[in-house]
Amino acid sequence: MSPSSAEIRRAVLSQEGDVAALFDELRAGSLDPVGPGVTRDTFGAGEQFGYRVIERVARGLGLEQKYDHAANLFMTLPGRDRGRPRIMMGSHLDSVGNGGNFDGAAGVVAGLVAMGALKALGILPACDVTTMAIRAEESVWFEVSYIGSRSAFGVLPDGALEAKRTDTGRPLAEHMAECGADVDAVRRRVASLSARDIAAWVEVHIEQAPQLIEAGLSVAVGTGVPGNFRYPEINIHGEWAHVGLPRRFRHDAVLAASDFALGLDEIWKAADAAKRPMAFTIGRFYSDAREHALTKVAGLMTLSLDVRAYDKAHLIDLEAQVLALARDIERNRGVRVDLGKRASADVAPSNPQLMHALTEAAGAIGIPTMPLASPASHDTATFTVAGVPSCMLFVRNANGSHNPHEAMEISDFLDTASVLTQWLVGAVHE
Amino acid sequence: MSPSSAEIRRAVLSQEGDVAALFDELRAGSLDPVGPGVTRDTFGAGEQFGYRVIERVARGLGLEQKYDHAANLFMTLPGRDRGRPRIMMGSHLDSVGNGGNFDGAAGVVAGLVAMGALKALGILPACDVTTMAIRAEESVWFEVSYIGSRSAFGVLPDGALEAKRTDTGRPLAEHMAECGADVDAVRRRVASLSARDIAAWVEVHIEQAPQLIEAGLSVAVGTGVPGNFRYPEINIHGEWAHVGLPRRFRHDAVLAASDFALGLDEIWKAADAAKRPMAFTIGRFYSDAREHALTKVAGLMTLSLDVRAYDKAHLIDLEAQVLALARDIERNRGVRVDLGKRASADVAPSNPQLMHALTEAAGAIGIPTMPLASPASHDTATFTVAGVPSCMLFVRNANGSHNPHEAMEISDFLDTASVLTQWLVGAVHE
Repeated sequence: MSPSSAEIRRAVLSQEGDVAALFDELRAGSLDPVGPGVTRDTFGAGEQFGYRVIERVARGLGLEQKYDHAANLFMTLPGRDRGRPRIMMGSHLDSVGNGGNFDGAAGVVAGLVAMGALKALGILPACDVTTMAIRAEESVWFEVSYIGSRSAFGVLPDGALEAKRTDTGRPLAEHMAECGADVDAVRRRVASLSARDIAAWVEVHIEQAPQLIEAGLSVAVGTGVPGNFRYPEINIHGEWAHVGLPRRFRHDAVLAASDFALGLDEIWKAADAAKRPMAFTIGRFYSDAREHALTKVAGLMTLSLDVRAYDKAHLIDLEAQVLALARDIERNRGVRVDLGKRASADVAPSNPQLMHALTEAAGAIGIPTMPLASPASHDTATFTVAGVPSCMLFVRNANGSHNPHEAMEISDFLDTASVLTQWLVGAVHE
Repeated sequence: MSPSSAEIRRAVLSQEGDVAALFDELRAGSLDPVGPGVTRDTFGAGEQFGYRVIERVARGLGLEQKYDHAANLFMTLPGRDRGRPRIMMGSHLDSVGNGGNFDGAAGVVAGLVAMGALKALGILPACDVTTMAIRAEESVWFEVSYIGSRSAFGVLPDGALEAKRTDTGRPLAEHMAECGADVDAVRRRVASLSARDIAAWVEVHIEQAPQLIEAGLSVAVGTGVPGNFRYPEINIHGEWAHVGLPRRFRHDAVLAASDFALGLDEIWKAADAAKRPMAFTIGRFYSDAREHALTKVAGLMTLSLDVRAYDKAHLIDLEAQVLALARDIERNRGVRVDLGKRASADVAPSNPQLMHALTEAAGAIGIPTMPLASPASHDTATFTVAGVPSCMLFVRNANGSHNPHEAMEISDFLDTASVLTQWLVGAVHE
């Protein structure tokens, strides 16, 4: 007989103390050496620390543990029929530099809490249930998206292994090898995951915006992960000049870059007005520190650009607008806009049946939810694009993420884990 | 009997070979270690090298040489009546980093050429004639204006000696002492120059814009040096956030800084349309390199601002507009604009009689000139503000200045030196 929602809820809430202690342990062991935040650097010491802690928790739950060729960790509760497509949960363990403690780790812990609840409820699942602790989701480090999950599916793009970590300047291949990965297998695009072996993927993640706070809800069901196009290093070449140069002779890279930033802001305003969700971010924006000075007109500005949206046609249209904007600026300011390398990721809408099942589960356990289009990138996109029925659950979170002030309440986390567990019990029970 | 214009012209042109060799020597000895340009760092090795070369030339001309407490060099051809107010010429010997060879040095060489011509013409001047090689004009190094000339007049502002050189991080006092200055005398505001002892000051300088190229002339007579106000380090504090944050929640420092840059550009456009000459320069413009990333909304932008104009009322009006712009941006973007320290310099119009005399001298020697409002800063402003009748002569120059491609033709330099000499002969002959 299936456990009641009240029993499921208790099986989750009873883990509150362990969960709080686990998050504290993760934070304490990965504090940034300078800032007040957490640094679990991708394929570095911070991420490695996270794996050591999570391994110990998985051992405590008696789960099977396996690392794949890309050093992703799979923690499995074996099912009755091990040949059936399994159910997977999880998220990534790395963080941005001086970031928050919950972005990524919360999804791994949520999977472990759900599996712990299954065990506590004495459920032998019909199929294997696996929580995956994914490597290298944060693209700030290597400026490559979804390194861990794409390696698992054997779809890491060409050249990624040669990408240099922005702080160390050393290539991904070297960092991976140091963390126990089989770089040669990654290069040969060995796959540790295949869509036909996965019945569903659910990723729990903190919300990076205050939309749940606005709505007064603790949990949201994701509608999909946006696709994006990125130009990590755009160089705008103007002309270095003396402060004494009259306006008509200037080719000022600072003004050209400002035109670019505000032109993009206008594009976003128009999309918002048309209710077409998107986001653009110029994360880096700087004059050349070797040359710039108080009394010199700047001849070079460097910037990064990330643009994201939820449908392919919109992305294509946005990119055309960005290119047209760059051409206008070249003409108006007499500068050259060198867009540099381009990267992109496909849009990844959630599986409608899975969205529905998660929403129903939330209703059954008495936790109201809302659908949420979150413009962030997530490994879930890799699963969706590979053909796995996928969805996300978002946890209410104050102060955004990718910063030290990220602030998820444990009670909101437990609400989300309860929804996840309620759904999981239904999915594995026969 | 006074020499003819033709004789004066010949006395200048005959120095062509020496002048070309001297500029080549200055360039060769102060090449930037990395860039293709010249680095004569203020109170550092590059500037010191310039002094060694100029001292040798002055010795060759048999001039009296004297360093003052601020290590400025005075090279004097004694006059018949040494008690009379003297005539002074000159400019500075330092350069920006990886800059050009002529910005500054050309004015010192022009003074020496004019004095060499006096000697060659056998003229014993009625009063002393002095070429001054001024220290530390380029404010990129210590972010303090006119260090050498203001020290000479005993008006260096409070705190300047503690200003740190932007590259070495060491204070001005230390750098000055290493170059032989008497820092204690500078601190006590000893003066080596006094307006009542100076009949006139003329500074030759390359033009930093292509206005003479547009006009097809080799020489211009300056109408004045603009005053300025500066905010060397403005910090715009937004909020660091995740790339997933919707537009309505963002406080993006990059966009706020772009608003600031383009708001200033609009102010300049309006002033140009109203024929009120001015200039603004945001020389430095950067997101925080320790924190910024491809997928983070920037929470901090830092920028420098220099605004200059030719009349005091205009400067006051411009500063009010800048402050209003900053307040608007704070309100519109939900950011905080911290303007930081402020510095300023008074406007310094040329002496009308001296402008007239220089224009007349140019006509007499057959070199057409134009009046020119150049928005750059020059030590001449210090002389003007102190009450010395002052004016500048600008030499046609391609590619602007403060960059390695600065390109003054020697023939244009000799035209300017001819005008200077023609005027000087008239001024010292009785």
